[in-house]
Amino acid sequence: MKHNNYRIPFDGSFKLEKSPTGPANDIPSDKKLKKLLAEANDKLYKLQRCLYAHNRHAVLLVFQAMDAAGKDSTIRHVMRGVNPAGCQVFAFKQPSKEELEHDFLWRSTTRLPERGRIGIFNRSYYEETLVVRVHPEYLSSQNLPGDVDLKTIWHKRFQSIREHESHLASNGTKIIKFWLNVSKEEQKQRFLQRIDNPEKNWKFSKTDVKERGHWNEYMSAYQEMLNETSRANAPWFAIPADNKPYARLMVANTIVEAIESLDCKYPEALEENRVHFDGMKQQLLLED
Amino acid sequence: MKHNNYRIPFDGSFKLEKSPTGPANDIPSDKKLKKLLAEANDKLYKLQRCLYAHNRHAVLLVFQAMDAAGKDSTIRHVMRGVNPAGCQVFAFKQPSKEELEHDFLWRSTTRLPERGRIGIFNRSYYEETLVVRVHPEYLSSQNLPGDVDLKTIWHKRFQSIREHESHLASNGTKIIKFWLNVSKEEQKQRFLQRIDNPEKNWKFSKTDVKERGHWNEYMSAYQEMLNETSRANAPWFAIPADNKPYARLMVANTIVEAIESLDCKYPEALEENRVHFDGMKQQLLLED
Repeated sequence: MKHNNYRIPFDGSFKLEKSPTGPANDIPSDKKLKKLLAEANDKLYKLQRCLYAHNRHAVLLVFQAMDAAGKDSTIRHVMRGVNPAGCQVFAFKQPSKEELEHDFLWRSTTRLPERGRIGIFNRSYYEETLVVRVHPEYLSSQNLPGDVDLKTIWHKRFQSIREHESHLASNGTKIIKFWLNVSKEEQKQRFLQRIDNPEKNWKFSKTDVKERGHWNEYMSAYQEMLNETSRANAPWFAIPADNKPYARLMVANTIVEAIESLDCKYPEALEENRVHFDGMKQQLLLED
Repeated sequence: MKHNNYRIPFDGSFKLEKSPTGPANDIPSDKKLKKLLAEANDKLYKLQRCLYAHNRHAVLLVFQAMDAAGKDSTIRHVMRGVNPAGCQVFAFKQPSKEELEHDFLWRSTTRLPERGRIGIFNRSYYEETLVVRVHPEYLSSQNLPGDVDLKTIWHKRFQSIREHESHLASNGTKIIKFWLNVSKEEQKQRFLQRIDNPEKNWKFSKTDVKERGHWNEYMSAYQEMLNETSRANAPWFAIPADNKPYARLMVANTIVEAIESLDCKYPEALEENRVHFDGMKQQLLLED
C-alpha cells in the first residue's frame, strides 16, 4: 500500500494495460482506510498552514480521469479540512470563446496558485491532448495559425506543457498530477447508479455514454500523454480508482509527502520589526 | 446565545459603544462551544453541496475588523470542513497600482463567487470607508476626478456600496457581513502575545501598534459604515470577538441560517436527459 508505487516513470516506459485499477491485496478495511484518511487530512491542514507562513512555494495538483472516476469526490474528501483560505479549486470545462482566443495554456495560467497556497485543477490543459485528440474536429474552433498537422500537433503540445511545468517548478511551484485509473466495468456500474438513483440523475447526461464509446482511443491518448509529461519536476501518479476509500488515501498520502518534502518553516520575525519589539511592548504596557 | 441578536438594525440606530465585545452570561464551556461548532461545520458541508447542485445562488461573506480581532482564524475554523471546490477566499490588502487605476469596487468584483459557491472577502471594499477615511492622504494615489470633497466622499461611497450589493442580491447572491468586535484591551493582550511568542512574531509589525493609536477614529468610521450599509439584502452582524470559540460559533450559526433560508434543492435530471435514461441503461447493460 505504498503510494510511490503508482508514480509513472520518467523514461516513457509506462504501460497502461499493466496499471492496476484496483488496490493490491491485503488492504485494510474501509473503516481503517477512512481513519488513515482522517489522519492525512489533519496533516494536510497543518502542512498548508506552514506552507502559507513560509510563503516560498505554491503547490499545484492536477486531476485528470475518465468520467465517474471520482475526481470531484476525491478532491472533496482529500482536501476537506484544509483551510479554504489556502486552497483554490478550478474546474476547467469546455473553453469559452474568450479563452479560445488565447493559446491553450492561457486560461489555466491565470488560475495558478500564488505562493503559500494549494491550487487544484479539476481537469486542465491536459484536456488539449485528450478530449481534443479524440475529437480533433474541436481544433477548428481554436483559430490556430497555418495548417494543423495532426501528426505533430500533440507532440508540440507535450513539449509546451513540459516547458511550462518546468518553468513553474523552477520558480517555486510543486507540481503533482493524478490520473485516476478507473476500469471500464466500474465506470459502467457508476453510470448505472447515476441512472437508477434519482439524487444522482442530475450528474448524468447522454454525452457521458457517448464518450464511453471512445474508451480505447482515450486510453491510447492517456498512455502517450502520461509517458510524455511525467517528469521529476512534475510527476504523474496513476492511482487505482475502482475502490474509492483506497484511491483517496493514496492521493492524500502522495500530497502529504510532496508538501513535507518542501520542508517549510514558520518564518522568524523580520529583523527590521524585531529591533522594535521591546519598544512596542513598553508602549503597549504603558498606554492609557 | 442567539446569533440574530447581533444583526445590526437597518434604520441607522446602531450604537457601537453599546455593542458587546464579549459573550452574554451563561454561555456553555469552551468544550461544548467547540462541539457545537463541529456540528455547524458538518451542516455547512452539506449545505454547500446542495448550494452547488442547486446552482441558482452564490453566497458572499464579508469580514471586517481591527487587527488581531480574529478574521483569519475565524474563517479557518468556520469554513474548515467545507469542500474547497465550493469555497473561495480572497484577502484584500493594500491595492496594487493596476487596481488603483479602476474604481474602488472593481478589484473585488472580479473576485465575486459564481453561482453555487461561497465567496469570502477577508477585508473588502469597505476598507475604502475605513482605513482610507482614517488616512485620507491615501486618496491622493487613487487618481479620482476633480477635487475630492472629504465632507461628501464617504457618503457617496456608502451609496455606491449599497447599490452594488443590492444589484448582487437581486441577481442571486446572498450577502452576509461580519464585523468582529474586539475590545481595545483584548487587542492589546493579543499584540503582547504576538511579541512574546516567537511562533507568532512573523504576524506582527510596528504599523499594527501605530494603527491602534487611531482606535477612536476607526470606531467612529465603523459605526457610520455599519449604519449606512446594513440593509435587509446585505445585513451586518456585530459579533463579540473577545472570546474566540464563542465568536466562531456565532459566525457559523449565522451562515448556516443564511444558506438554509435559500432553500436549495438537488435538481431533477433535465427532461431532455431523462427521456433517454431507459435507452442508455439498455445500451450499457447490453454492451460487449
